Amino acid sequence: MIVIKMGGDIVGSGSLSPAIIDDIKKVSEEQKIALVHGGGDEVTRIAEKLGVPQTFVISPEGIRSRYTGRETAVIYAMVMAGMINKGLVVALQKAGINAVGFSGVDGAAIRAERKKRLIIIDENKRKRIIDGGYTGKITSVNSEFLFLLINGGYIPILSPIALGDEAEILNVDGDRAAAYVAGALGADLLLFLTDVQGVYLDNTIVKKIDADKVSELLPRIGQGMEKKILAASEAIKLGVKRAVISSGFIDHPVTSVLSRELGTVIF
Amino acid sequence: MIVIKMGGDIVGSGSLSPAIIDDIKKVSEEQKIALVHGGGDEVTRIAEKLGVPQTFVISPEGIRSRYTGRETAVIYAMVMAGMINKGLVVALQKAGINAVGFSGVDGAAIRAERKKRLIIIDENKRKRIIDGGYTGKITSVNSEFLFLLINGGYIPILSPIALGDEAEILNVDGDRAAAYVAGALGADLLLFLTDVQGVYLDNTIVKKIDADKVSELLPRIGQGMEKKILAASEAIKLGVKRAVISSGFIDHPVTSVLSRELGTVIF
Repeated sequence: MIVIKMGGDIVGSGSLSPAIIDDIKKVSEEQKIALVHGGGDEVTRIAEKLGVPQTFVISPEGIRSRYTGRETAVIYAMVMAGMINKGLVVALQKAGINAVGFSGVDGAAIRAERKKRLIIIDENKRKRIIDGGYTGKITSVNSEFLFLLINGGYIPILSPIALGDEAEILNVDGDRAAAYVAGALGADLLLFLTDVQGVYLDNTIVKKIDADKVSELLPRIGQGMEKKILAASEAIKLGVKRAVISSGFIDHPVTSVLSRELGTVIF
Repeated sequence: MIVIKMGGDIVGSGSLSPAIIDDIKKVSEEQKIALVHGGGDEVTRIAEKLGVPQTFVISPEGIRSRYTGRETAVIYAMVMAGMINKGLVVALQKAGINAVGFSGVDGAAIRAERKKRLIIIDENKRKRIIDGGYTGKITSVNSEFLFLLINGGYIPILSPIALGDEAEILNVDGDRAAAYVAGALGADLLLFLTDVQGVYLDNTIVKKIDADKVSELLPRIGQGMEKKILAASEAIKLGVKRAVISSGFIDHPVTSVLSRELGTVIF
C-alpha cells in the first residue's frame, strides 16, 4: 500500500502531469494506492475573487497557516472538493484509472477536533490567543470506508477536509491528513510529491531522517518543509514503514522512488 | 430501494430542513436509499460573483437550460460537488446518517455523451444550431459502485455531473440523473421533492400520470415541471416502480409519500 500526497504546486487548479499519471497507473497495477491532494493557493485565489480576503496566521513555532473563518470554510470545501478534486478525478479517469474523489466529511472518512483557540504571533511579535475558527486537529480516519473503495477496485483521492465533532466542515492540513490516512491504511510508503528534490540542509539534500530525531533538525529547515517533515514523522509513529519527500517534477516521480534512493527518506 | 431527488429550492447552498433529515433517517433504517441533489441557482450566483455571467438557452420544445461553456463547467462542478454536496453531507452526518457525497465523475458513477450541438430558439424566435458546450446526455450509471457504498452501509448523495467520453466534466440535468440512478438501482420509488405539492393542471393536483401518456399532458404543463415529468416517465421506462412528485416543505415529506397517496404519481 502506497499513499501519495500531491501538493498545490503539483495539482494547480486540478490537473496532473502525464509523468505522474503514468506512474500512478503503473503502481496501481501492482499495489494498492490512495491519494491525498492539496491546493491552498487556488483556495486563496477563488476566495479573493469572491470578495473574501484570506488571512494567514503564524504560530509560536513559526508555522504559517490559513485562518479559516466560517465563509472561508465553505469556500475551502468548495474549491478543494469541487474544483481541484474533481479536476484530478477526471485527469485520472481519462487515463483509465478508476479514481473516486471525496473529502473527509464523506463517510466520516477523516474526523477532527475543532481547535477552540489558536495561539498566534501578532504583527507586534507578541503572543495572542484568537478563536480557532474552522481548523481541525485530526483524531481518526475511517479506514473501513477507505478499504471498501480500495478493495472494490477504486483509487480514493481525498481532499484535506475533516468532519468536526459537531459535524462542522473543518480545514485540515493536507500533509497531516496524508500521514493519518497512510497510518490508518498501514501503508508501506507515504510519498510527498513536492516542487523540490527533497529536504535541503546547507544546500545538500538530506538523505535520511530518523523520525525520532526530527525536533533537532527542524530549527534549521524552512517553513513549508518543516510541516512536511513533521507530518512524515507522525506517519512513521502511526506505523507507516517509510515516508519520502521527493520531486513531482521529474520523470517517473513515483516509480523512481520505489526503485532507488531518491529525495529525503524519513524512517 | 428509494431514490430521492432534492431540487435547488430544497437544498439551497447546501442545507436541509429538519423534517427532511428526520425522514431520511427513518427511511434509511428500513430500506436502502440514495440521494441526488440539484442547486442550479447557487451555481448561477457564484458564477456571476466570479465574473462568469450565465446564459440560458431555450430548446424548440420550450425547455430552458444553462449553456455550459468551459469556465461554467468548472464552476458548476465546484459549486455542486464542493459546496452544495458537502453542505448536505455534513447536515446528514450531523444527524448520524452516514452520507457519502460524490459526483458522476467519481468511479465513473454517471457516464454521459457530450451534446455536440444544441438546437435553440434565438431571440428572434428562429431555430439556431450552436456548439453543445459541456452538457451531457446520460448513457450509463455504475450501479456496482453505488451498491458497493449502499451495501457497505453508506448513503450516497450524488451531484448532477457526469463523465464524458473524453473524460470531460459534463453538466447533466439533476432530474434525469435521478431517473437514471433510480433505474440502475432498480428502485421501487423515485421521489422528487419540490417546492410545490405536485403537478398542477387547471389549479388541481393531478393524482396519477401514466408514463406512456406523458406526451399528451406536457403541452398543458409549466416549464420546470415538464422536465420532472419527463424524467419521471424515463425512470418508469427504466424499470422504477413508481415516481412521485411531491412537496419537500411539508411535515414528513418522505414518510408521508410512503404511507399514503400524496403529490403526483407517475407509474
